[in-house]
Amino acid sequence: MSTAVEPTAPAAVAISPEQLLAHWQGHRRLTRRLIAAFPEDQLFTFAIGGMRTFGQLSLELLAMAMPMVRGAATQEWETSFDRQPVPKDEILRQWDADTAAMDAYWAQIPAARFQETMTAFGQYTSPLYDLVLYCVDNEVHHRGQGYVYLRALGVEPPPFWERQ
Amino acid sequence: MSTAVEPTAPAAVAISPEQLLAHWQGHRRLTRRLIAAFPEDQLFTFAIGGMRTFGQLSLELLAMAMPMVRGAATQEWETSFDRQPVPKDEILRQWDADTAAMDAYWAQIPAARFQETMTAFGQYTSPLYDLVLYCVDNEVHHRGQGYVYLRALGVEPPPFWERQ
Repeated sequence: MSTAVEPTAPAAVAISPEQLLAHWQGHRRLTRRLIAAFPEDQLFTFAIGGMRTFGQLSLELLAMAMPMVRGAATQEWETSFDRQPVPKDEILRQWDADTAAMDAYWAQIPAARFQETMTAFGQYTSPLYDLVLYCVDNEVHHRGQGYVYLRALGVEPPPFWERQ
Repeated sequence: MSTAVEPTAPAAVAISPEQLLAHWQGHRRLTRRLIAAFPEDQLFTFAIGGMRTFGQLSLELLAMAMPMVRGAATQEWETSFDRQPVPKDEILRQWDADTAAMDAYWAQIPAARFQETMTAFGQYTSPLYDLVLYCVDNEVHHRGQGYVYLRALGVEPPPFWERQ
């Protein structure tokens, strides 16, 4: 006697893998504009309320985005990275290199893997889609902080809704 | 003579409708904790760099979240809402009522609709999944702003990663 087993993977698509990457890359284009708009001499010095500088936050974003996608594709996880202040141009160059690398690694991730649970960076265990959303949310969260810093510095930030 | 037409909807699931709602409601639990932590006498008065108060931002979030989900379910779009300052307890009561309403309306949205393009609030035309992501991102963005306001006020904000 056999028992019918319902599939455990969700059948309906709210968001496909390609759409999730496109969404993230749209956010990354906006975040890049915020970094570019930040006054160089304030990037690693200005902060509010004892929080981190936007330069430090930018380095954190670099340490999460491409390494997350590379890890999802290869299961090789980078667990250390350099947090030393660097010139803004260097952050932007790394950002652009990572944008291309993320596209390339993403294409290597089997579609079914987004629903599989894995441990990222040796310590964060969750379905891959949730790990990716965490990276995106963390970027939007810290970028929101960057908007306040820019306004406090008297700089008009780029519009939130523009992602191209 | 007939021509085979490839389906245009993406076949692979990165995120299912149920997962997207669960993700959003997790963010809403955190945002609710930020509102609850905000000093009542600063909610509609404190701001940095000419930006809006966290009270005004909270009212905007209320005007977007449940109305978006209701609109997706019913195609009835609310296009006006009250932006008058209200006591914090009233915002939290509305937040909780909307949380329940969002769960109920979400259950009425056919799964295929998340990939369909619609016009929300009479003016924002995009696939439904993208409209929902915009609401979530807008909440995370403004909540990030709220974190800076709280820190500037000397209040320890709730941890970003806690969503239960």
